[in-house]
Amino acid sequence: MTSQKSFARGSAAPGPVAEGYVRLYSMRFCPFAHRTRLVLHAKGIKHETININLKEKPDWYLEKSPLGLVPVLETPSGQVISDSPITSEYLDDVYSERKLMPSDPFEKAQQKMMLENFSKIVPYFYKIPSARRNGDDVSALEGELKEKFAKLNEDLVNKKTKFFAADSITMIDYMMWPWFERLEVFEMKHCLDGTPELKKWTQRMVEDPAVKGTMHSTDTYQAFYKGYIEGKPDFDYGL
Amino acid sequence: MTSQKSFARGSAAPGPVAEGYVRLYSMRFCPFAHRTRLVLHAKGIKHETININLKEKPDWYLEKSPLGLVPVLETPSGQVISDSPITSEYLDDVYSERKLMPSDPFEKAQQKMMLENFSKIVPYFYKIPSARRNGDDVSALEGELKEKFAKLNEDLVNKKTKFFAADSITMIDYMMWPWFERLEVFEMKHCLDGTPELKKWTQRMVEDPAVKGTMHSTDTYQAFYKGYIEGKPDFDYGL
Repeated sequence: MTSQKSFARGSAAPGPVAEGYVRLYSMRFCPFAHRTRLVLHAKGIKHETININLKEKPDWYLEKSPLGLVPVLETPSGQVISDSPITSEYLDDVYSERKLMPSDPFEKAQQKMMLENFSKIVPYFYKIPSARRNGDDVSALEGELKEKFAKLNEDLVNKKTKFFAADSITMIDYMMWPWFERLEVFEMKHCLDGTPELKKWTQRMVEDPAVKGTMHSTDTYQAFYKGYIEGKPDFDYGL
Repeated sequence: MTSQKSFARGSAAPGPVAEGYVRLYSMRFCPFAHRTRLVLHAKGIKHETININLKEKPDWYLEKSPLGLVPVLETPSGQVISDSPITSEYLDDVYSERKLMPSDPFEKAQQKMMLENFSKIVPYFYKIPSARRNGDDVSALEGELKEKFAKLNEDLVNKKTKFFAADSITMIDYMMWPWFERLEVFEMKHCLDGTPELKKWTQRMVEDPAVKGTMHSTDTYQAFYKGYIEGKPDFDYGL
């Protein structure tokens, strides 16, 4: 709801979180924080956002969350929760509007297994662009990624559902989405060419209001990542 | 309840899981499977155990669980659940006897954050023995581990509880325990010398019936790990 300029070293700490709100510490272009932003939007949770300059972290932030990562949630009573799946499940537990995790124990376990599997895909979003920048041949890495995409495609085909666990979006779809939104800026979109069901999933996802509401354009990502790679990330790009 | 010799390549697949039981695919000395064994014991869940020869994995096991890791659970209806925290939480969700995870969302999130933190300690249980075998100086690695132990010690001191989340054992204690049981065999027990509260926690843990019921002696671990390091693990040692 608030989209403020990032807080950097030397900034004054924000005050306590207002009653009835939850506060998200975020970075506008971070895919992990994006997960929590999707959950906040999808569930319509009243929240405020404090963006953190991850290159020049405020001391007060490191005191609150010693690892200094995002996403982090803070509640009016001062509870601090970190890590993208943990913050997402916490929000789903506390706010009963539109439950994103199934209540059935096996279905819940399946969501977690899918997330564990997806965590092995995430590194390719760093390895491929970085190899390409070094002028290395990325075809082997792309081949590995395509194999993993083929497995996701097969899951959708076998399940015959529009999304990964059902015909409507559940938690796992939001946990995976941020990296798919960045496929184009990382010049990896062609990796979807052999996996039509997965591609259709991405097309369904962009129609979702929470996905739309938290999205950045490829141009914006491009500008941000250019600075990021050069060691001069502009956390406030476009504000 | 059953402690059978391990199933290797070429073995016949076990039949379906009996009604009223859950089946654990395990390896007797695996610390990750140990987590799930602790939960099964602590909650008194009727189960059978199929031990897997992880060096010569049965084809039927790789079909059931393509990564071929342990622990894996199987239910009478053929549901398959992998990964140590996922299997543990699944059991806690399905079996209401002696809940190990708190129901409060923030306390649940705290358990997960502690587990995430502990996952950064686990690698030292491989790095230190392996460096020692190579004749390397392990003092820097031990120093890092002691720092992490000091943080756990501080958590116990601040919380003023006998275990990590309460005065009785909860999920996080069982998730951490398997590595502490192996401190002696890895010649790392002295790393606890500067952290008296953490040491007291280990002394309290060994009094727990589930810990006692799933424990191996240091001699047994020693014999197993000797073979393991030499590339000839005896998965059936002591049977």
